[in-house]
Formats: sequence, structure tokens, C-alpha cells
Amino acid sequence: MAGESPIDATRLPAPVLLHDSARAPNPRRVRIFMAEKGITLPARDLDIMAGAHFRPEYRALTGTHHVPALELSDGTVLTETVAICRYLEAWRPEPNLMGRDPLEAARIEMWQRRMEFQLLQPIAFVLRHSNPAMAVLEQPQIPQWAEANRPRVAAALADLDARLAGAPYVAGDRYTIADITAIVAVDFMRTIRQPIPEGCAALAAWAARIRARPAVAATDPARREAR
Amino acid sequence: MAGESPIDATRLPAPVLLHDSARAPNPRRVRIFMAEKGITLPARDLDIMAGAHFRPEYRALTGTHHVPALELSDGTVLTETVAICRYLEAWRPEPNLMGRDPLEAARIEMWQRRMEFQLLQPIAFVLRHSNPAMAVLEQPQIPQWAEANRPRVAAALADLDARLAGAPYVAGDRYTIADITAIVAVDFMRTIRQPIPEGCAALAAWAARIRARPAVAATDPARREAR
Repeated sequence: MAGESPIDATRLPAPVLLHDSARAPNPRRVRIFMAEKGITLPARDLDIMAGAHFRPEYRALTGTHHVPALELSDGTVLTETVAICRYLEAWRPEPNLMGRDPLEAARIEMWQRRMEFQLLQPIAFVLRHSNPAMAVLEQPQIPQWAEANRPRVAAALADLDARLAGAPYVAGDRYTIADITAIVAVDFMRTIRQPIPEGCAALAAWAARIRARPAVAATDPARREAR
Repeated sequence: MAGESPIDATRLPAPVLLHDSARAPNPRRVRIFMAEKGITLPARDLDIMAGAHFRPEYRALTGTHHVPALELSDGTVLTETVAICRYLEAWRPEPNLMGRDPLEAARIEMWQRRMEFQLLQPIAFVLRHSNPAMAVLEQPQIPQWAEANRPRVAAALADLDARLAGAPYVAGDRYTIADITAIVAVDFMRTIRQPIPEGCAALAAWAARIRARPAVAATDPARREAR
């Protein structure tokens, strides 16, 4: 949007409802993003293990079966985690989580996507193709595909540890959406019994710092279940 | 970047070199995006079938093995197709391909990501796990994973056809980055011998229109090889 006049965020349609799912990683990314900005919204929890996201009403609303989805006051329904976050960033610009200028925005997006494709997605493949409980969501389950992704998770963790040995946050010198994707992925490793490897001191220290953020702690599914 | 002052694109670091690969889909997405904006850049072609992207020099430059990568005049190296495109959109705002306001930008990003995750990625999984020539890039190859993705490609094509029966372009009423991702994916189906299904008239008509665009035609690997 370079070259355009500044957007008046107060004239944008307001977010009115989040279609959420308590234990899934993508909705948690949006919940953390909202909490960092102080956005609170009504949420409707979908029981994805019972297939709620495949019901015709949900498909008619969103055009897909993806969760989360964000409804706006003008009737727009957005899916795709990062598209939802980018809209919320425009609607509530502070604290900035996606970049203050085009160069920073591109760097943050690069790191965000690396976390998504290199770390979160392989973790999800391991879970969905190795855990019998996931058979309701993933057909066919292919155990060899789960196994092929375990070393990719390990490689992504080693790369991330190396990155965090040289930078305090995933995208550089400040907390951004790239850290949100990364901590959601790292926490989601519980589902595949993959700990942070012992040698990854920079990654472990970063995870402890990020998990101490109120927005991150409040959305931790392990803490919720311990209540 | 809502609420910020307008960016003066002339003050941004200029793109100076594209690390490219002639037949791979992601670099083609960037080449089409640049051609639509009239951006011409020196390019360095990486022979990915010979593993050029795994050489230490490339890793040292980009921090990864991903292609494409864009070098800027200030020394920044960006990877990740969409991050590169978003930077180029700021540097050369017209014609606009990623949205003129936050709501349009979010819709376009949603559709772009649907094309990426629902269509392009399953096609790539089929190719990489079924074609013996891809064994140099994909280890282990898992034929069952290729087969599991064939019906996902078919489902994505049916969804896209239904979308294009109701809208002239993927993201709505005008040509955007979502069309670029989609046409690159559809053309990439040649590698898995998947045609546009006979019943998909809206998809076929859209593909013919998009392929006639000079930026798309000029980057078609089939045409290049026919020369």
C-alpha cells in the first residue's frame, strides 16, 4: 500500500466474531495476535475432532473448512491465519507486529513463512500421520510421511536455535508475528512428544521469554487444561 | 502499515539481483509479478536439479536453500516468494497486485494462500513423491503421499472452478497475486500429467485469459522450451 494515503483504521469494518478451536495451532496464532493488541472478541468454538468445520453451515459461511475464520461488521468472512492477522494489524495498528516499513515488513514476512513452512507444517504432518486419534481429520494416514517429517522438525529447530543465538527474536530485534508462529509451533511439539533439544540453549531461552508474555501464557492449551 | 505516513518508494533499497530457477514454480511467480510491474532485473539461474541451491555459498547468502531470493541494493537478501512480491509491490506500487486498502489486501491474501496451500502444494507433493527424477530433491520419496495428494489436487480444481464461475478472477473482480499463484500451479500440473478437468469450463476460460497476458506467456516454461 505504499504511495497510498494513510488508512483511517476507524473507518474499517470492525471484527465481530472469531470462529475458533481451542487446541488447534492456527486459531491460537490469531488469539495471541489479538491479545497482544488488546482485541477481545466473541468466539465460537468449533469441535474439529467432531468434524464441526466440515458441516454445511460452516462451509456456506467461509467457503472452506479452515479454522480460524473472522467475521467483520460488513459481513465479510476472512479465513487464513495470516490474512486475518494482517487485517487486524490495520484495524488496530499498535503494537506493531508485522512491520513499520516495507523492508521490515518483508523481513518479518520472510521469517513468518519460514516458521510456517519449515517448522509448524512438518510438526502437523508428524501429528496427523502418526496419531491414531487424528484419523478423523487425516485420510489416509501415512506413517512413512510422519517419519519423513521428524528429521525436518529437528533440522528446523537447529536452524531456529542458530538464528536465535544471533538475534533476540525470530525476525530480528523485536517481537513480531514470526515469534507468534514459532512459539505456537514449539508448543505444538508436545503433541508429537518432541522436546526442545538439549543443545538448543538459545531456542530454550527465547521460548521461556516468549511463554512469559501474558498473551502467550493465556492461550497455552496445556495451562488451560490444567485449570 | 495503517496509520503510518505514505511510503516514498523512491527511498527504498532497489532490487538488484534475482536468484532464479527457470522451471520451478516459485521463481516463476516472482518473474510474473515483476513482469506485470515492468521490473527487469539481472537474474542468476540456479540449477536446482544439480543441487546448486544446497551449495554453501548460497546458504551463506540466503540463510536457507530456498529459491527464489532477491538481493537489494543495501545488501538485504529476501527469500520467500510472497515476502519478495510484497517488497516489490511497495517499491513499484503500480499496477497494484496485492490490495489497495486493508480489506482488499486481506481478501487477496486469503485467496493467495488458498491457492498456495490447497492447489500448488499438493501438486508439488504429487510430483516430488512420484517422479523418479525428483529423488535428487526429495528424500525419502513416498509414493503413498503422492497418491494421497492426487484427489486433493482434483478437489482444489473443483473448488477453483466453482469460484471462477462466480467471479472473473481468483480474488474477485480484478487480476491479483492470487491469479499468479493459481496459474503457476495450473501450468505446473503438466509435470504430473493432470489436465484441467473437462467439466471445469470456468477454470479453463480463466486459464486461457490469464495465459494470454504477456507477463504470464513470457514466463511459461513450456513455451521457453519450444523455442
